[in-house]
Amino acid sequence: MQDKEITIYDLAERLNISATTVSRGLQDHPAINKKTKKKIFDLATELGYRSNKFASNLRKQKTNTIGVIVPRLNSLFMSAVISGIEKIVNNSGYNLIISQSFEQEKKEKANAATMFNSRVDALIVSLASDTQDFSHFDSFNKKNIPIIFFDRVAEEIQSTKVLIDNFKAGYSITKHLIEQGCKEILHITGNISRNVYRDRFEGYKKALADHKIEFKPDLFISNDLTEQALQDIFANDIFKRDKMPDGLFITNDSAAAVALTILKDAGFSVPKDIAIVGFNNDLISRVTEPAITTVNYPGNEMGENIARILINHLDGEGDLSFTSTVILNAELILRPSSQRNKNNE
Amino acid sequence: MQDKEITIYDLAERLNISATTVSRGLQDHPAINKKTKKKIFDLATELGYRSNKFASNLRKQKTNTIGVIVPRLNSLFMSAVISGIEKIVNNSGYNLIISQSFEQEKKEKANAATMFNSRVDALIVSLASDTQDFSHFDSFNKKNIPIIFFDRVAEEIQSTKVLIDNFKAGYSITKHLIEQGCKEILHITGNISRNVYRDRFEGYKKALADHKIEFKPDLFISNDLTEQALQDIFANDIFKRDKMPDGLFITNDSAAAVALTILKDAGFSVPKDIAIVGFNNDLISRVTEPAITTVNYPGNEMGENIARILINHLDGEGDLSFTSTVILNAELILRPSSQRNKNNE
Repeated sequence: MQDKEITIYDLAERLNISATTVSRGLQDHPAINKKTKKKIFDLATELGYRSNKFASNLRKQKTNTIGVIVPRLNSLFMSAVISGIEKIVNNSGYNLIISQSFEQEKKEKANAATMFNSRVDALIVSLASDTQDFSHFDSFNKKNIPIIFFDRVAEEIQSTKVLIDNFKAGYSITKHLIEQGCKEILHITGNISRNVYRDRFEGYKKALADHKIEFKPDLFISNDLTEQALQDIFANDIFKRDKMPDGLFITNDSAAAVALTILKDAGFSVPKDIAIVGFNNDLISRVTEPAITTVNYPGNEMGENIARILINHLDGEGDLSFTSTVILNAELILRPSSQRNKNNE
Repeated sequence: MQDKEITIYDLAERLNISATTVSRGLQDHPAINKKTKKKIFDLATELGYRSNKFASNLRKQKTNTIGVIVPRLNSLFMSAVISGIEKIVNNSGYNLIISQSFEQEKKEKANAATMFNSRVDALIVSLASDTQDFSHFDSFNKKNIPIIFFDRVAEEIQSTKVLIDNFKAGYSITKHLIEQGCKEILHITGNISRNVYRDRFEGYKKALADHKIEFKPDLFISNDLTEQALQDIFANDIFKRDKMPDGLFITNDSAAAVALTILKDAGFSVPKDIAIVGFNNDLISRVTEPAITTVNYPGNEMGENIARILINHLDGEGDLSFTSTVILNAELILRPSSQRNKNNE
């Protein structure tokens, strides 16, 4: 169904000039006069001529495209990061193309290949939860195409990383719940083989230890944090326990909102019976009753930071190799869902 | 900073064979033996050789990449559509690249150019709200690269479209609110120059007319439906009116949840003082108190439908030109935020 690819021979025939002239014209060769060059460029554009050299010479080996690979696009945090990136790169004349790994290494590799074949000038990556091998980034390194990792990063990779202090955030949340009188704090989170969830979990355990509270393995649950997964875990496990938790630290706001709704529907009072803290400061944490205590994960600022570092590097004004890790602040935002001392109804 | 592009001459030199042999090998020419072809392919892959012909011959003129251009990625509806598309295309060996127009025609044109230069095999588009000129799709048509439009479409474009009956949905919502006793129904919506918002608005007006309720221009507000825009419109306009509306039809669930929170904070009872209906059936509509009546906009099913039509076309099993418009069902989901007859507290 597809038309034949346009070649320099087609252009030469249509313009009644030699293929060599077309080739030189597309390469902006000084021997070809401006008028001829313009005729060649115009026809090439009109007919949709596509090649390495045309693009690269027109635009100095650059496509002005930056690739982004993220685990999933279904969170407001991720769309905020991407909006932040896009805001900065647009002003610099770059365009983004985005793909999702769906948390799968295999898909991440396919996405990386697509990005490479699309000749992106740079790549921005948040790793899939199960990525163990990083060889799909080798081809970029070989061509000096810069890569920045954010949020979900890996220690093993020598590349610029932009993230928050997840350990500290996990610690602050747990400490806050302990200060509200919670003694049985349930931690529901994602796959802890990835830094974000692992570090928050480590912060949770350290805060317990610092307050002489024993870590109980049955108060730790790892799943995909979907609405369905939460309904299942409450119905089949938590509600069947002899002792209900009195605190809940759950690592995203949508999941926290779902848990809040499940608990309220089952007759529990929040925060009196169980205090809840989410993560991200998504809109959803502000529209529930009670509103949900959360960590302000500054997605937009993170995106802008990533893009600025990258653009500076691409423009030759900075060098990524001098910027190894950027840690952004992420503060606890107190709301009624966890504040028992103020809300003794 | 970037390495020189690898050419067939580099491959020839490294393999100690002629450039003609390399060129023929990459084109799968029968004169070159399998072992040599393999050596050429392996080195080309290793060094990151990129060209039209290599890709096209390796993969029969296909990149196995499908481009998606959407207004914004920050809605669960949009991520559900993309997930639905991705589910189907992945199984067929295609990979998606996605970009956002941010509701701007100019950016949509830049995205289309990027997709074209990335040699996508097909394009899926939901139009920006201000796109008036559609010439950026001409280059795709010239090369017979199929395009499917969804959700935000334009009558002027001769191409396959997948959408819901927005007029009917707007009519059903308004009729429901009238049946709940609402007489002053405020409609807050997006830019009505695009079909989705225009058709819902037309449905709203028709339902009013059919029930002998006069349409009042001050009960129609068009803005970008952000949290900030809603806070402003309530503080500076709605709360200052002599007569408050008794019904609210607002065209996405996040906006409905924000409006619900603003109204509750101001001391209004929902649905008693004001009944609310949103749109999309996003998670956020299920976690508020009261939960919000909405329209189930089946994003996932829409995405799967789009992808199936497209894959059939690309595989030669169907032909897009026979499928002009696909209308999916979108049903009203009744919840407490609008049900006054059952909730006379």
